[in-house]
Amino acid sequence: MNKNKAKLKVIPLGGLEQIGMNITVFEYEEDIIVVDCGIAFPEDEMLGIDLVIPDVEYLKMNQHKVRGIVLTHGHEDHIGALPYVLKQLNVPVYGTRLTIGLVENKLREHKILNDVDRTVITPGQKIKLGCFNVEFIRTNHSIPDPVALALHTPAGTVIHTGDFKVDFTPIYGKPIDLQKFGELGKKGVLLLMADSTNAERPGFTKTESSVGRAFDDLFSNFKGKRIIVATFASNVDRVQQIIHAAGKYKRKVLVEGRSMKNVVATAIELGYIKMPKKMMITFEELDQYKDGQVVIITTGSQGEPMAALSRMAYDNHRHIQIHKDDKIIFSSKPIPGNEKSVSRVINTLFAKGAEVIFEDTHVSGHAYQEELKLIHTLVKPKYFVPIHGEYKHMKKHAELAENLGMKSDKITILSPGDVFELNNKEASKTGRINSQPIFVDGLGVGDVGSIVLRDRQKLSQDGLMTVVLTISKETRQVVAGPDIVSRGFVYVRESGDLMGEAREVVVKALDQCNNRNIRDWGKIKMAVRDALRDYLWIKTKRNPMILPVIMEV
Amino acid sequence: MNKNKAKLKVIPLGGLEQIGMNITVFEYEEDIIVVDCGIAFPEDEMLGIDLVIPDVEYLKMNQHKVRGIVLTHGHEDHIGALPYVLKQLNVPVYGTRLTIGLVENKLREHKILNDVDRTVITPGQKIKLGCFNVEFIRTNHSIPDPVALALHTPAGTVIHTGDFKVDFTPIYGKPIDLQKFGELGKKGVLLLMADSTNAERPGFTKTESSVGRAFDDLFSNFKGKRIIVATFASNVDRVQQIIHAAGKYKRKVLVEGRSMKNVVATAIELGYIKMPKKMMITFEELDQYKDGQVVIITTGSQGEPMAALSRMAYDNHRHIQIHKDDKIIFSSKPIPGNEKSVSRVINTLFAKGAEVIFEDTHVSGHAYQEELKLIHTLVKPKYFVPIHGEYKHMKKHAELAENLGMKSDKITILSPGDVFELNNKEASKTGRINSQPIFVDGLGVGDVGSIVLRDRQKLSQDGLMTVVLTISKETRQVVAGPDIVSRGFVYVRESGDLMGEAREVVVKALDQCNNRNIRDWGKIKMAVRDALRDYLWIKTKRNPMILPVIMEV
Repeated sequence: MNKNKAKLKVIPLGGLEQIGMNITVFEYEEDIIVVDCGIAFPEDEMLGIDLVIPDVEYLKMNQHKVRGIVLTHGHEDHIGALPYVLKQLNVPVYGTRLTIGLVENKLREHKILNDVDRTVITPGQKIKLGCFNVEFIRTNHSIPDPVALALHTPAGTVIHTGDFKVDFTPIYGKPIDLQKFGELGKKGVLLLMADSTNAERPGFTKTESSVGRAFDDLFSNFKGKRIIVATFASNVDRVQQIIHAAGKYKRKVLVEGRSMKNVVATAIELGYIKMPKKMMITFEELDQYKDGQVVIITTGSQGEPMAALSRMAYDNHRHIQIHKDDKIIFSSKPIPGNEKSVSRVINTLFAKGAEVIFEDTHVSGHAYQEELKLIHTLVKPKYFVPIHGEYKHMKKHAELAENLGMKSDKITILSPGDVFELNNKEASKTGRINSQPIFVDGLGVGDVGSIVLRDRQKLSQDGLMTVVLTISKETRQVVAGPDIVSRGFVYVRESGDLMGEAREVVVKALDQCNNRNIRDWGKIKMAVRDALRDYLWIKTKRNPMILPVIMEV
Repeated sequence: MNKNKAKLKVIPLGGLEQIGMNITVFEYEEDIIVVDCGIAFPEDEMLGIDLVIPDVEYLKMNQHKVRGIVLTHGHEDHIGALPYVLKQLNVPVYGTRLTIGLVENKLREHKILNDVDRTVITPGQKIKLGCFNVEFIRTNHSIPDPVALALHTPAGTVIHTGDFKVDFTPIYGKPIDLQKFGELGKKGVLLLMADSTNAERPGFTKTESSVGRAFDDLFSNFKGKRIIVATFASNVDRVQQIIHAAGKYKRKVLVEGRSMKNVVATAIELGYIKMPKKMMITFEELDQYKDGQVVIITTGSQGEPMAALSRMAYDNHRHIQIHKDDKIIFSSKPIPGNEKSVSRVINTLFAKGAEVIFEDTHVSGHAYQEELKLIHTLVKPKYFVPIHGEYKHMKKHAELAENLGMKSDKITILSPGDVFELNNKEASKTGRINSQPIFVDGLGVGDVGSIVLRDRQKLSQDGLMTVVLTISKETRQVVAGPDIVSRGFVYVRESGDLMGEAREVVVKALDQCNNRNIRDWGKIKMAVRDALRDYLWIKTKRNPMILPVIMEV
């Protein structure tokens, strides 16, 4: 086989048409590498689901080819599914120091730390994975140590930006390595895959440093008052800036919320957050300080009901109560879908007499249009695939590339499971593989599917009614019951008539079965269910799940 | 009793700290009038609930005093609860012509049209209801014929703005009667109650007419392509402007969606929408026209899954499919909480090759900060109560009033159920009445309460498991079962082992009861439930509802 004629396959298993669950397969002949391995958070209709992970059946089928998983940064939607996937497919993992540090926390929790081969890489470094030469390029994002990837393959070079922004004055580390993008572009790039999250937003993102100036202003205004800042646990640079402000204004720092404590501990240990040891205090020490001497950094910026800030707002926090003049800063923006729960927390805090501030203390970690144009212009790829975003974002990103002069036939919007094959001559979708996301619920991985969810949906709307009766094997007569138990349907104590009549409807349905000599349990159950459903619909215009159980003695 | 010493009571039964369910009671000695009577839409956690209505127990207890219900405009959150309330309390209803027209549609649906005394009033008119002289003042809003109210009472004059904006160039009718606000202010106003919805937004709302110019541009650009516009059914002026543009660009109009058809029919009948008869077409006629000759006006601008536009997007519409180059205009803004479902519809439309436009074709119907300042300055009230909005909006509105020079002790933020008493000398909260909102689910009004909702919540997360067994009365031995039926918990066909073991756990729990001579059914059920719950938690980290049913033969 002539190597130059072979094609590179690009197969996203997630991360497109959705926010989260980023994972992409790159395959060239006998070698596969995987970029990122993230989770998605469940949609509203995925009732009871804890998180969503990608289906890696394709990788398991090709296990002998898989050379490793390469990570772009340490956010949940890029590393969160690793423990689940590594349990099915134990391959080496590569990432920068903070990324691997956060991965190790996860592997430890899942008790597989010692089974997994981890390699810390440095931006600028190159590693060889099969026929892939993987080059790590420094970028900026809302977590330190993010990288883009240049995948040098026999078919050509692919640049995968990961999540990125252009920040000329970042907090930790240096600005994105624009020179490298330019150099690679000059040499010739086959394919660019770039972050589309903010493709709808004109202009340039603000630098993370601007948030530091906003904090400085606020801390200077809020002398004598307690300050509580809610932000994303993973936003290590943000936390660092709050600590800077705290230092300047002589405040002690209390860190609250499970994920915030974990990430901050890891970041301090690895040197990504610098703070004097005696600056950090615990709940026990809190009482020793006046309100004006403290800042609390907490989770809960998305209004999550169980997060620390929500528990403070709703008086469910064991150690911290909201004080009348507390200044509460939301250093975050609601993720789509969370607007309402965030509003609810804000209203509750206001009603307690606290002041809530939610302006100027957040910047996005994803490139806006002008930054995207910059990357496109530096890289000048032959082909372009927008990634990371809903369909509307990828569509907008495709338009942006066209406006920069790219031909529309060189741009492809992919769906999860699409097999996209390309070389220097051509590029096209050539097939599909299965990529149905897998639901994690408690310890169960994949045991909740569409049938279970449909049942939960039905139960959530109108509840259920169980009808139980015992029939004699010999006489075929009902010897006990029917008993009716309902939950989530009506308040039974105030619905005696309805339940009594429902029982009569069941008895009548059973009589009719008897008269017509129906002996088949399945048919009897169906007759009971139909009769009861019709009766309840007429009486209540509700449609509870009906569960008939027949026992034989 | 000296009349001048009596106080006016103001009791909001809803509409504060929430969006929707606007209803306020005004009581002076032996007279009560009610302003508005709206519904709220259910929050996410109100599973299976169709709508939420106010508790009017206080009005029923004081039925002999109630002189009537006065309506400010025809939106659901101001008139939607009328049929439910009038069934409990049949009192006269007053409103402008369009408002009463929309009320009549509702009363007809509930088959109580002939039982209700309706009076159409004209802006500028005054009516006497007991000791209240009610004056109707023309305003502007996102539905025609809105009014503010001046309630002239023995304790002084109250101005209640309803929902309003200031529009100098409205589509139907005239600008808000600012002169009247000024005249009343000059004479002296005791209390202003004003719309807080947009108190966080600086500046002035745009005029509704600006949307007409945007439509004109879009229609002129989209020649040859089909145009679909999604907007609120009640936004009659918006529909009128779409019809104007359709007329100018020679397009036929198809109106789709149940509520859209109802409102448009009423608006045409009453003269609020003007259109040539032959302009309107039906599904049957649609095929006779090319894409460029048609505009479809539809519901679904909030991404509601069952609304017409969503059905088109998801290929569930019986008559209309989305065409590749359709131009779909969202003439609306997502209501908080609907952002995600709107995004989903937009993504689906984009993926079908349609173009989606959601800029510049919507203006708000609620006053921004500069408009609020204008009203405050014209009215110059002695006391101020912000209404209509979440807590954060009312708080912001209170700050705005303070910034205009009002003393903070003259401003009161109320909660639903607060009794606020005032006269020319003083104003204060003096008590509370019960105002728990009532849930409507199907035909049931108030039969779903917190227990039923808690059960639905639990069922929605982890499903249920029913355990049924039959015990002999004589021997106390199990003669049939235990049978286990589960729904929404695990996919049973693939969980044979789990279900088998669960059955053994139940048998063991029963044996233990037997050994310890436990005869009480309640105790036996509890033992079964506890054993099963522990087993399932260890095995699955899930917590389904467990329903043990024991029968005796």
